[in-house]
Amino acid sequence: MRRIYVIGIGAGDPDQLTLQAVKTLNKADAFFILDKGEEKADLTQLRRDILDAHVEDPSYRLVVAGDPERDRKTSDYSPAVDDWRHRRAELYERFIAEELGDDECGAFLVWGDPALYDSTLGILEEILERGTVAFSHEVVPGISSVSALLAKHRTGLNRVGRPVQITTGRRLADGWPQGVDDVVVMLDARQAFTRHLDQDLFIYWGAYVGTEDEILVSGRLSEVSDRIEELRAQARARKGWIMDTYLLRRD
Amino acid sequence: MRRIYVIGIGAGDPDQLTLQAVKTLNKADAFFILDKGEEKADLTQLRRDILDAHVEDPSYRLVVAGDPERDRKTSDYSPAVDDWRHRRAELYERFIAEELGDDECGAFLVWGDPALYDSTLGILEEILERGTVAFSHEVVPGISSVSALLAKHRTGLNRVGRPVQITTGRRLADGWPQGVDDVVVMLDARQAFTRHLDQDLFIYWGAYVGTEDEILVSGRLSEVSDRIEELRAQARARKGWIMDTYLLRRD
Repeated sequence: MRRIYVIGIGAGDPDQLTLQAVKTLNKADAFFILDKGEEKADLTQLRRDILDAHVEDPSYRLVVAGDPERDRKTSDYSPAVDDWRHRRAELYERFIAEELGDDECGAFLVWGDPALYDSTLGILEEILERGTVAFSHEVVPGISSVSALLAKHRTGLNRVGRPVQITTGRRLADGWPQGVDDVVVMLDARQAFTRHLDQDLFIYWGAYVGTEDEILVSGRLSEVSDRIEELRAQARARKGWIMDTYLLRRD
Repeated sequence: MRRIYVIGIGAGDPDQLTLQAVKTLNKADAFFILDKGEEKADLTQLRRDILDAHVEDPSYRLVVAGDPERDRKTSDYSPAVDDWRHRRAELYERFIAEELGDDECGAFLVWGDPALYDSTLGILEEILERGTVAFSHEVVPGISSVSALLAKHRTGLNRVGRPVQITTGRRLADGWPQGVDDVVVMLDARQAFTRHLDQDLFIYWGAYVGTEDEILVSGRLSEVSDRIEELRAQARARKGWIMDTYLLRRD
């Protein structure tokens, strides 16, 4: 039976790879990498660098495919995402069925931790449900962008005995989550923190954490919000894309 | 100036150590380890094994101290925890001031990820505020018990575009958190999931994840709740302590 490894490779710093991830990289016959275009070429390159640095037998195969474009213009979020997932599922299915022999192992290298806002596990489930190709799969946890962010700010995700919510920029824009004073925000393309300037909040923000482009800002949201907006716009213009995360903490 | 590293060592599997953690271990002159008594001797041993396996120069110093006892009988949670934290802070302060030379590096090895329900960072802040000993500190993120649990169950923390809350057993016993359908529960000594058997929930449960004692159960909560209670009681009786975490997912 084909075997698939879903390997968390950390949030940007190649040293965030775990020993388990290194061992698992060395079991794979082929790696599947989605190419997200020229702008994000450094993300693809980081994966290649990891393979060069840690895979001992260089006879592995590298399968690179273009990531299906997501329709970001539509205001209708879910159907656009569903459609994009289905197209990704078709790509992954083809990789497993056509690029791997019956007893071979393939690996997906996942940014951060495969458990946190990543589609790979859901897509593999979808392929298994279709039943056109059989495989077993195993997950290697990785350092998430949240852990990496908080380590750089030397603060905790939660306060003693208190809950924390992890949510999206889209949801934070709709209102502050109920019942929590600590909120981690991911996938925020709209700077939803600017909707909450009236609250007494502290922000721990970071972009490209763990890479040489890393930018960190922390402070009272009302005092640092403008600066984050500015840094974000500059970085985005310079690199063509931005990957940022933040924790909002209410006093 | 003294330098302190707070190093996440993963959730039980020694291979969950990151390359960054291994490199940082090799920079420390002394390691501080809290001994939690005979019952939890395997936790202390795991830290010793990690040092044996990964520190190249064996001339480091190991400082082991007994963990202050927490008064678990009082129903008044916060004062008991505060008192215990203060006593831990005194121990840590003594370690930094007395066991490290002026230009030396000391390290704390933290189970899981230092950002998630761990007291080390808060205690170091407390010591810095007191101002009796100066030091700089750095955090090395680790694989959290949550990431380790979800990897074993091959499921995500969140569903597409949805929020997730991480909370304690104490809080879950008081009621289901508002506004979320996915809840991760930590530090649950009272099996708070049994209070929510009336809901249509799925549970992904694990104890001692990543170690040779690992136990995993997943399924409809109403169907597997009794089994988890039983396995939990048996494991606790056998080992003297239990470390478990779970994700509850509402349909």
